Amino acid sequence: MGKTVLIVYAHQCPRSFNAAACSTAVQALKDRGCKVYISDLYAMNFKPTATAEDIKGDLKNPEHFDYGDETMAAWKEGRLSEDITAEQQKVKEADLIIFQFPLYWFNVPAILKGWIDRVFAQGFAFSLQNMYDNGIFKAKKAILSFTTEGMESMYLPDGINGDINVTLWPLQNGVLNFCGFQVLAPQIFWAVAHSPPEVRTAMLDSWRERLMDIWTEKPLTFASTNLFNLTFPGGFRLHPEAKEKLNALPYGITTAHHLGKPVPPNNQTKVSEK
Amino acid sequence: MGKTVLIVYAHQCPRSFNAAACSTAVQALKDRGCKVYISDLYAMNFKPTATAEDIKGDLKNPEHFDYGDETMAAWKEGRLSEDITAEQQKVKEADLIIFQFPLYWFNVPAILKGWIDRVFAQGFAFSLQNMYDNGIFKAKKAILSFTTEGMESMYLPDGINGDINVTLWPLQNGVLNFCGFQVLAPQIFWAVAHSPPEVRTAMLDSWRERLMDIWTEKPLTFASTNLFNLTFPGGFRLHPEAKEKLNALPYGITTAHHLGKPVPPNNQTKVSEK
Repeated sequence: MGKTVLIVYAHQCPRSFNAAACSTAVQALKDRGCKVYISDLYAMNFKPTATAEDIKGDLKNPEHFDYGDETMAAWKEGRLSEDITAEQQKVKEADLIIFQFPLYWFNVPAILKGWIDRVFAQGFAFSLQNMYDNGIFKAKKAILSFTTEGMESMYLPDGINGDINVTLWPLQNGVLNFCGFQVLAPQIFWAVAHSPPEVRTAMLDSWRERLMDIWTEKPLTFASTNLFNLTFPGGFRLHPEAKEKLNALPYGITTAHHLGKPVPPNNQTKVSEK
Repeated sequence: MGKTVLIVYAHQCPRSFNAAACSTAVQALKDRGCKVYISDLYAMNFKPTATAEDIKGDLKNPEHFDYGDETMAAWKEGRLSEDITAEQQKVKEADLIIFQFPLYWFNVPAILKGWIDRVFAQGFAFSLQNMYDNGIFKAKKAILSFTTEGMESMYLPDGINGDINVTLWPLQNGVLNFCGFQVLAPQIFWAVAHSPPEVRTAMLDSWRERLMDIWTEKPLTFASTNLFNLTFPGGFRLHPEAKEKLNALPYGITTAHHLGKPVPPNNQTKVSEK
């Protein structure tokens, strides 16, 4: 196939289930002829903090340091630190990025958040002209692959932790879809620590199997930017005509574009039939 | 008043708006007789990564390192690293924690996520018996106070970024409410970089004013754990009787406990009238 995959992997222990999920993916993808990069964040001692050290040479405005502005300027001029540039090179080559991590506090671990904060610099990963379905990475796919402590039913709309689709929204829409990625359904390994060995093995088998056909999978559905009036006077809100049309439908557009109506079921976890 | 406040502050620059919001809070609270701690994460060079170095002495299971298990054991035995213990001491004393940060990728910056991952260790911040409205910190209040790049209308249910209430759910429910905090309405400073000086000054004034009466503010509403069958056979889901009763109402319980119905408006941003 000649495809390239980057696995951004965030677990401390080579004997963890997350490590096994990572190796499973590496093997399955290599078997299909893919080139695979792994960014093993803990092993790399990856720096998560967004600081002035990420910029080589003089700052534009040292008196009033703004990380976003400084890194955008540094990216344009090739003055981002080596560790960021190396990761950006892998992202550039990748047709698919898999984020492999244990869910920490309904979110990615800090070291992975740091990878996002630092690697997805303005200019490289998005610009004011290029976001959402006009995003820079629209030819690339991305998957969140993660383990949870709790069982699946806890993350239902009537479960103690609330709907997992809401939990996933800021990551899948705000990071991945924002940069234009085709977001594939998340690979969720529920309650791994409480699962017997044969269940864990079955989970890895189904992950391996899924990866066999990963290139033909349809992505999740997000709101098209065409629906919105992307101007300051328009407030970056739905066009009135679009709103009228959508209001007639039984559900909102996405989990967070709910328009005061019921959210479309499984919007961030399952591919829509349409 | 004799109250104690901890401000967990995550901005690199002492001349930023975030720094001004932090100083405004310090001054307002001190004027009201409060004791104020500031954890200035970048200045402290706070370590965000969850690693074995966070544990002093021998690991329980070095062959199969599990951060949650190891830090829970270390907390019980007073073997967490000095930097974590120092932060936990401030949390213990605090009646209110203010998290002051710029929104990075619809989320906290990595350095602040690292503070959460490391300081809120199992045993110290939660246990299987103590979570949500039985949470360890139920006598304490917490506020997310943050700046955004985008304007408010972008974060409406019909705005390009989707409903801010969805974005806030994993942090406010999954971190703060999970640990039992009374979660006060977030203090959101919209589009600060694009606001003229007089608007910024007015924002700080209204923050100062809000802090004058902060101790009497009602918290946001979350789902009571009494509504759920918190057993494995019950799947940690709503009691059937509770579900029937709630199904008759026009809205779900919270943003993510939506029960397939419209989400209650502003559930994570405004105090409910009831």
